[in-house]
Amino acid sequence: MAAMIRPGALARELWRLFDEARFAEVEPLLAPDFLCEWPQTGEVFRGPANFIAVQENYPGRWRCTVEHMIESGGEAVTRTRVSDGKTHTFALSFFQVREGQISRLTEFWADPYAAPPDRARWAERRRAE
Amino acid sequence: MAAMIRPGALARELWRLFDEARFAEVEPLLAPDFLCEWPQTGEVFRGPANFIAVQENYPGRWRCTVEHMIESGGEAVTRTRVSDGKTHTFALSFFQVREGQISRLTEFWADPYAAPPDRARWAERRRAE
Repeated sequence: MAAMIRPGALARELWRLFDEARFAEVEPLLAPDFLCEWPQTGEVFRGPANFIAVQENYPGRWRCTVEHMIESGGEAVTRTRVSDGKTHTFALSFFQVREGQISRLTEFWADPYAAPPDRARWAERRRAE
Repeated sequence: MAAMIRPGALARELWRLFDEARFAEVEPLLAPDFLCEWPQTGEVFRGPANFIAVQENYPGRWRCTVEHMIESGGEAVTRTRVSDGKTHTFALSFFQVREGQISRLTEFWADPYAAPPDRARWAERRRAE
């Protein structure tokens, strides 16, 4: 049955559990040889236990809202707003799925920053996010 | 014929032109009502001309390498390494395509940062990117 779960549904379920701070419960979603890579730091977390430990030990209580998802074949990408109520960031997450489990996650963290004034003449501004 | 171009091919063509600093040449790839949003700053660039002006005026000469692409329906997502030979960043780009042109781009910029030592016990390190 696990093989029938689509990549986007697995990705959304992982984020739902993270949103509820139920980190250990993502373990069945992950392949035994699961590997997470964060290219911005060069860090690689090998295996579900290491990945879950990083989440459990990250300081703060972060709510996670998936704003967009696209999936194709054995892959899904999510765009997630992550906020502790004071500050926020965006997670851009590339999932690979194999036999109904997430085998690989390549993830980027994009923090807000101030818009440079030198390009203001070409920009409109959204409400503060 | 333009309507037959797939979203992923349009996205790759935009990045190829950016890689070659041929910014004005992306204009035919963009819908007249094209809109680019950078959620990290809240900036919105409305119309091809504003978007192209921002690229043309961004300081430095940046090479762009698409490392991954997934597409589904009228959407594509690219993961692109952008480097001026001294420093680099990652662009995470969500394209929406309508009738063979890019109608919307929601884009995030993820800079490298130092891995916090407090999670080193769970991490392996890739070669420096």
